[in-house]
Amino acid sequence: MREVTTAQAAQMLREADDILILTHQYPDGDTLGCAFAMCRGLLSMGKRARVVCSDPIPQKYSYLYHDMKECAFEPGFILAVDVADAPLLGSGLSEYADRVDLCIDHHHSNTKYAANLLLKEYAAAAEVVFEVLLELDVTIDEDIAAAIYTGISTDTGCFKYANTTAQSHAIAAQMMRVGIDTYPINRLMFEIKSRARFEIERLALESVEYYFDGICAVMYITKQMLQKSKALESDLDGLTPIPRQIDGVQIGVTLREKSDGAWKISVRTGVEFNASSICGRLGGGGHMRAAGCTVTGTAREACDKILKEIAAEREDERNSVH
Amino acid sequence: MREVTTAQAAQMLREADDILILTHQYPDGDTLGCAFAMCRGLLSMGKRARVVCSDPIPQKYSYLYHDMKECAFEPGFILAVDVADAPLLGSGLSEYADRVDLCIDHHHSNTKYAANLLLKEYAAAAEVVFEVLLELDVTIDEDIAAAIYTGISTDTGCFKYANTTAQSHAIAAQMMRVGIDTYPINRLMFEIKSRARFEIERLALESVEYYFDGICAVMYITKQMLQKSKALESDLDGLTPIPRQIDGVQIGVTLREKSDGAWKISVRTGVEFNASSICGRLGGGGHMRAAGCTVTGTAREACDKILKEIAAEREDERNSVH
Repeated sequence: MREVTTAQAAQMLREADDILILTHQYPDGDTLGCAFAMCRGLLSMGKRARVVCSDPIPQKYSYLYHDMKECAFEPGFILAVDVADAPLLGSGLSEYADRVDLCIDHHHSNTKYAANLLLKEYAAAAEVVFEVLLELDVTIDEDIAAAIYTGISTDTGCFKYANTTAQSHAIAAQMMRVGIDTYPINRLMFEIKSRARFEIERLALESVEYYFDGICAVMYITKQMLQKSKALESDLDGLTPIPRQIDGVQIGVTLREKSDGAWKISVRTGVEFNASSICGRLGGGGHMRAAGCTVTGTAREACDKILKEIAAEREDERNSVH
Repeated sequence: MREVTTAQAAQMLREADDILILTHQYPDGDTLGCAFAMCRGLLSMGKRARVVCSDPIPQKYSYLYHDMKECAFEPGFILAVDVADAPLLGSGLSEYADRVDLCIDHHHSNTKYAANLLLKEYAAAAEVVFEVLLELDVTIDEDIAAAIYTGISTDTGCFKYANTTAQSHAIAAQMMRVGIDTYPINRLMFEIKSRARFEIERLALESVEYYFDGICAVMYITKQMLQKSKALESDLDGLTPIPRQIDGVQIGVTLREKSDGAWKISVRTGVEFNASSICGRLGGGGHMRAAGCTVTGTAREACDKILKEIAAEREDERNSVH
């Protein structure tokens, strides 16, 4: 599908109405920040717009749609934000999978399933959305600023990760000048943990195993741990970076047992390895430093599958260097 | 002592030579970032300068003085950076306590023990130092940018805490445009944990107690825990914010047993309470949202002492509102 510029994307939206905004499944701060910033911007232009998501939106994001007046309509234009591939819309939005008019995104793994405004060097899709809103002459009010900030802050791990750029900080500065209070947002996104979350974190820490002379750490989150800690799905946010926090670890792997017995594998890497490439070997994908895939089997088998691909990746890296 | 402007501070430094730069004891990223940014800036002006600290500088900060050429001299001018009070220089630098020519700082608790460039609304003293360096026409190279960034990032909890301002982000953007790679810095400061640190964190989490209907959480770090985990002093960084990360907690207290049996109390608060005011009741001080004090007694007695002051603070807050 064709690539469009920021100006062209803005023009498409200017000409559109009754705009349905799609987020990805298991919504995060970037897809939701993009969706509600865009929705509020389009509403301020006098258009009809609303946000839909295949999964329930976690309570902690409720400030994003606070006081927002969405409206009912038959979609005239379908916009996907931060959705790298049509299946990521989730089962609840599968009817729109082949009907997306415009996709605004930043994922390297984007499959170009629609007309695409794709800026891969941007840390967050919210940075792309911000540029589109400026192009549309939308006034950035506090609600829009909070949504844009949320997208940038969550996708950069609060400006910590390697994807953070000078632009990420510059936009954050602009959003703060609009008058938003960022600490309550960051506290909700990064600090507050339920007691169940404390418990699951302790159990997960105990499961950590080391491979390849300690450059790889593997952590498990099993169904049994979930039961014991009473942790909910929403309590698991932010656990996957933990293995990479151990001194010397360059590849952090988290193996999460799903209800159907499959294992969702998350891989986080430092500059030394490409997480997207490792997960791509098992049919997954994502970013250079954070990617995922799904495998089946016992915990041991699942772990061995990813370790085998990590070993292969290391071998390929060595061969390409020499 | 007199307050000076940024321009006046710059003028004092322009007229000075053989500048000894003092940091505070138990040095953190802000005092060290300030000191090495300033030292490199003064060296680039052709002056003699060097940094001194009462305590050993933790290894993780070694990139700050990498390749820096300090020189030996009899001090002609004494500059303190991020040092709120003369005793905080520590025993190793007590000889300079009443000889400081200029103090560059941002602490509300600053006691004005020297000519002071004090900008209390700044998140980090490194932001003040940055302005002084600009005033001195120093070229901000990658080494200076990394030092300034380190000060801002560490004092704002990587742009997460309530003290973060639009200016903090704007300066971070400028530092990144100089070409620094911020992720390795943030990984060193916020992510990497030794295995001993994992262990002490688990033990500390298990000690958490709740008070005042869960709005206060108290965590202990005892000598016994330190022994069991083999954690060093440097492994304890970043533990004190943990109690405030629990859902509903507005006052997070950490009680740390020192080698002499005294308890170092750290208090972290949300917008609802003033940490500096709470600790001030026990002879301590600090910032609005992060402060400390020292008490003696058993663990139970130490805890009761701070709880009593928190209760008194809550009572005063209630009376001042009605």
